[in-house]
Amino acid sequence: MQYLDFDKTAAYGRLTDLAPEGREFNFIEKLNAERVEKCRIAMASGLTYNWAAKAVTEPVLDALQALADEQELVAKYKLLLDGEIMNTGENRKVLHHLLRGQLGAPVLSEGRNIGDFYRQELERFSAFAAGIHGGKIRSSTGNAFKSVVQIGIGGSDLGPRALSIALENWALREGRNHLKAAFISNVDPDDASRVVADLNLDETVFILVSKSGTTQETLANELFIKDKLKKAGLDPSKHMVAVTSETSPLAHNPAYLDSFYIDDFVGGRYSATSAVGGVILSLAFGPAVFKEILAGAHEADRFALEKDIRGNASLLDALIGVWERNFLKLPYTAVLPYSQALSRFPAHLQQLDMESNGKRVNRDGRPVGYATGPVVFGEPGTNGQHSFYQHLHQGTDIVPLQFIGFSESQGRDDVETEGSTSQTKLKANLASQIVAFAKGRRVSGDENVSRNKEFPGGRPSSLIYGERLTPAVLGSLLAHFENKVMFQGFVWNLNSFDQEGVQLGKILTKKILAGDSGDPALDAYTRLLGL
Amino acid sequence: MQYLDFDKTAAYGRLTDLAPEGREFNFIEKLNAERVEKCRIAMASGLTYNWAAKAVTEPVLDALQALADEQELVAKYKLLLDGEIMNTGENRKVLHHLLRGQLGAPVLSEGRNIGDFYRQELERFSAFAAGIHGGKIRSSTGNAFKSVVQIGIGGSDLGPRALSIALENWALREGRNHLKAAFISNVDPDDASRVVADLNLDETVFILVSKSGTTQETLANELFIKDKLKKAGLDPSKHMVAVTSETSPLAHNPAYLDSFYIDDFVGGRYSATSAVGGVILSLAFGPAVFKEILAGAHEADRFALEKDIRGNASLLDALIGVWERNFLKLPYTAVLPYSQALSRFPAHLQQLDMESNGKRVNRDGRPVGYATGPVVFGEPGTNGQHSFYQHLHQGTDIVPLQFIGFSESQGRDDVETEGSTSQTKLKANLASQIVAFAKGRRVSGDENVSRNKEFPGGRPSSLIYGERLTPAVLGSLLAHFENKVMFQGFVWNLNSFDQEGVQLGKILTKKILAGDSGDPALDAYTRLLGL
Repeated sequence: MQYLDFDKTAAYGRLTDLAPEGREFNFIEKLNAERVEKCRIAMASGLTYNWAAKAVTEPVLDALQALADEQELVAKYKLLLDGEIMNTGENRKVLHHLLRGQLGAPVLSEGRNIGDFYRQELERFSAFAAGIHGGKIRSSTGNAFKSVVQIGIGGSDLGPRALSIALENWALREGRNHLKAAFISNVDPDDASRVVADLNLDETVFILVSKSGTTQETLANELFIKDKLKKAGLDPSKHMVAVTSETSPLAHNPAYLDSFYIDDFVGGRYSATSAVGGVILSLAFGPAVFKEILAGAHEADRFALEKDIRGNASLLDALIGVWERNFLKLPYTAVLPYSQALSRFPAHLQQLDMESNGKRVNRDGRPVGYATGPVVFGEPGTNGQHSFYQHLHQGTDIVPLQFIGFSESQGRDDVETEGSTSQTKLKANLASQIVAFAKGRRVSGDENVSRNKEFPGGRPSSLIYGERLTPAVLGSLLAHFENKVMFQGFVWNLNSFDQEGVQLGKILTKKILAGDSGDPALDAYTRLLGL
Repeated sequence: MQYLDFDKTAAYGRLTDLAPEGREFNFIEKLNAERVEKCRIAMASGLTYNWAAKAVTEPVLDALQALADEQELVAKYKLLLDGEIMNTGENRKVLHHLLRGQLGAPVLSEGRNIGDFYRQELERFSAFAAGIHGGKIRSSTGNAFKSVVQIGIGGSDLGPRALSIALENWALREGRNHLKAAFISNVDPDDASRVVADLNLDETVFILVSKSGTTQETLANELFIKDKLKKAGLDPSKHMVAVTSETSPLAHNPAYLDSFYIDDFVGGRYSATSAVGGVILSLAFGPAVFKEILAGAHEADRFALEKDIRGNASLLDALIGVWERNFLKLPYTAVLPYSQALSRFPAHLQQLDMESNGKRVNRDGRPVGYATGPVVFGEPGTNGQHSFYQHLHQGTDIVPLQFIGFSESQGRDDVETEGSTSQTKLKANLASQIVAFAKGRRVSGDENVSRNKEFPGGRPSSLIYGERLTPAVLGSLLAHFENKVMFQGFVWNLNSFDQEGVQLGKILTKKILAGDSGDPALDAYTRLLGL
């Protein structure tokens, strides 16, 4: 397998030559009904990816296909599935796909079949959740557990939180709600303090999530909670489970009701489908629901094996992102789900994308000479329409957009006003925005006419849509973006699976806390903060 | 008063010449203890703005002062305070400062003293809140109200929601919590459906907020709620108040328990200190707390009158933002509060900034030839450190940063682990990040050494810090950013107070709902969405 820096590929030159085709793409002329019908790809769980409103022509598509072939994107994905060391910086395999099912060869490590290990943990925490739901596992005062609180940060927080919020209303509607879920992440004591204020501690089980077992924030919050439990006369060991690696100080520890294991082959931001997301989602909605998420993700992983970019949504989404980033020179992407249930999904994607591909060196640690991962941000629509969309429509820069929408609501609880339901209004808004961003609106008149009601258009967007946001659909969406980010990392020849950028701050923090920062400027800052 | 496009000023040329000073700013050499001590400005409510880690030299400061003088930034602010028509596009005064107190001349409009009107409404809704807290105003079944839910979108949601979340833990600690606050914004019926599931309707009062009284989302959600209230056997008119303009269809309407008024001189994103924020914050925390917010904001408004940029934090913050946007060519800003209480403050600032200054025409409607407002995004620290900070530290592009931090926690409920409290860890992390971003870390060795542990540094940041996040501090923070955005709008010669960019989508949505979109491509999109 060949690992080429992006600017050393033949496709790079070809795409550079094609850049004017993208910049001059005439949306008013080209975005017609036929294009909307044609430019779509079937995804897992009945979802569809539509890229009609992207500034992409057939020659550009051909060049992107050539890029996919030249960088062997799908072949690299297959290597990853088969257990190749794709996390070069940390010398690790990358196996989050295996959490959802077997797509490659069986993966062995130190004599162990990793797939078996993942399946075994899945069954263990499924049984644990069933034990809590069935009332067999009870609090230290004999109460049934009614709430579950995850203590974790970064990947142990954002993904599981986004998924949990995404299914709350669905679960209420479908009668699948078990424990009420909450999250504590920040080392700011106000986070834990605020969450605890709403809990009945004697009906709450806490999940402590730290792969290394050394995460500063998580250990501090564990102590905060143990302190509260003790003060309430409760036994912390009957109210807390651990999700960690088998080599961590938290493993095999009688201080916990039970422990579930992950390993170094699943990175934090890719861990939502491991025990990191699985324990809380199984407790909140039942193990069957978590398995539906896994099935949806597995199906998306399978769809991502297709080599034809016109038939692989994750691959094409990745390549269009590269086209926009490196050739149209657009340094950001907004994710805009028209679904309140996905309110924190953009925050998860922000981590997934920016932590994976916000890198300036290639997989071998050599600086690259091209732009890599963009800034990712977003909020749900229609809320965003009344907020930052002004900038997206009429700002001096162009921000590429990624819309998500569904035909039906989750709650199936709606009202009709002025002849349409709220869900219909939501969808009408979504469709309108795509076309408004692409085509804009001219104002007629000479140069003395005010242009403040003019919309320049030319704002590219894609749309992922489906029937209803179910657990399987959610799993497919999650995996789609994981795979998109992976393919982009392959294009840019990055290691998308480490995060060395978090280390320097940690080192300096430790020095300060040990009383010797080694930098007078740093000491001056700590003084300002009353430290 | 002269209104010049930015690129027509003498300062623009001077700053262009100085740009290399910023790009080559040597943080390792220049960011010493003396600079950290020196580069700070006192703000309202005991806050401080520190800009030591910004790529700004004395000649740049001098040029920014010249820009402030040439564009008459403070003089324009004074005109605005005195009631000049600064919202040129909509031909309106801009009077959100007057909500907090009188700084300019009395403002009259159609024979009415607007300051008197604002003060009168403040007293009216303060009395209303006291009536609810005292149990004089009760639900239709005679219950005391325990929850309050705001129904509003955009400015009627983001600011009030951010402020409400920001004070929850403070109020719990200080015994100032009255009603529990929640928010419904999205037209997605899953939003209202999810919020209602957690409520006892017979103990809930709803606030319907729409200045025009015609906001599609808000009216749909009003009906959704009225429907639920009726089905629960409750009288909606005893459970709902309106915040609207006196000319709206909602005004003086017996369908509401009471109505509180705003006017066209306060824009949605500037309305948190009007009845739009005031009713819910007074109900949640008491009228005295809301008045403390106003006092903090008023003090910040007064501080913003200073002409010397070295003594006016809002002005300098604005000018450094312009320096970074137009001369260092950095198209985004991240807002990073080290306070979980400010978890939704970045979402409010995203609206405030991007809706105000995401404009491509000047105040007279003529296209401008320079970049205006940046993309704004952010999440609280330390959470972000475990998420998108990888990109900020080691990405290929530089994102300017705005940190916020406090000496003390709100809840004053903390634990010590490994010799330090969580609050101390939080502050140590904050200080470390500033220095890590600025100075980075070199890796020694030849070109064959892996650079994945290298940090390029050169990432500029500012820090706003204070003692503790109280209502007054929160009000000062809010007004600081409002005034920063206003000053930037004056520099760019924009009208920061309209939002024509939201109109096109609304028009297309109406056409779709009326059955005639007029565009076959739009029809194709609506078909995809099952509309």
